[in-house]
Amino acid sequence: MDDTKPLDDERAAIEPDPPLFYSRHVFVCTNERPAGHPRGCCKHRGSEKLRDYMKARAKELGFSDVRINSAGCLDRCELGPTMVIYPEGVWYSPKSTADIDEILATHLGGGGRVKRLMLKPGDDPPRQYSKPGKPRS
Amino acid sequence: MDDTKPLDDERAAIEPDPPLFYSRHVFVCTNERPAGHPRGCCKHRGSEKLRDYMKARAKELGFSDVRINSAGCLDRCELGPTMVIYPEGVWYSPKSTADIDEILATHLGGGGRVKRLMLKPGDDPPRQYSKPGKPRS
Repeated sequence: MDDTKPLDDERAAIEPDPPLFYSRHVFVCTNERPAGHPRGCCKHRGSEKLRDYMKARAKELGFSDVRINSAGCLDRCELGPTMVIYPEGVWYSPKSTADIDEILATHLGGGGRVKRLMLKPGDDPPRQYSKPGKPRS
Repeated sequence: MDDTKPLDDERAAIEPDPPLFYSRHVFVCTNERPAGHPRGCCKHRGSEKLRDYMKARAKELGFSDVRINSAGCLDRCELGPTMVIYPEGVWYSPKSTADIDEILATHLGGGGRVKRLMLKPGDDPPRQYSKPGKPRS
C-alpha cells in the first residue's frame, strides 16, 4: 500500500541516535598562540599540565566511560584555560589541579556542577580586536 | 523558617545549565600514531584535510554557531577518520570531502543524520592488542 510510505519516512526521522559512546566527553583546549597575542592562549595558561593531570586522575578513579581529550582552539581564549564537558555542554576554567579534582569529584563523579569555575556566555569579552562579522579563528 | 532550606537546596540542584555556547560542536580526530601501529590513526587516514575542508565550508555556509575543532585521539582509531558532533554525541567516519558536504548539509544544516556514515558502538573491533582491563590510551 502506498500509504505506508509516509509512516516509514516518519519512523526514520524519529529514530533515536545510538547511545553515547562516552557518558562524559571532556575537551581541554591546548591551543598555543604566538607570545604576545592579545587573546593569549590556553597552553600558556597551563592547560597541558591540567589535561595530563585530569587524564591520569580519571583513570585512577576508574572513570572508564569518561574520555579526557585535548582539543584545538575552543575560542574562549581570554577565559582560559578552558574545557567543555559534553553532552551537557558545560564549560569550566580550572586554574589548578585542585580545581580539576573538584570537577572530577563533583561533576564527573557526582553529576553536579562546580559553579565557581563554570563559564557563562556573558563571560566572554567583546571581540574588539576582530573586525565585525569576521569569522572567529 | 528552617523548612525553607531543603527547598533552596532543591532549587540549586535543578538549576539549568547555561545555554550551549555552540549549537553544534564538532571534534575531528587528528591524532597521529607511529607508522605501522596496528590501530592506525585518523591523521594517516586523511583527517586533517577533511577538518580543514569542513572548517572552511562551515564558514562559507554561514554556520556561525557551529564550531569545527581538532581533537586528540578519540580512541576509535580503526574506524577513522572519526569525528563526533555534540551535544547529540553522533559519530561519523567521513572518507571524502563529498561526505563532509553531506554531513554539513544534512546534519548541521538540516538537523538530520547521514546514516551511511554514522558509527555505532558495535562497530568497534575487539581490543585484541590491549591487555584486559588496561586503560585505553
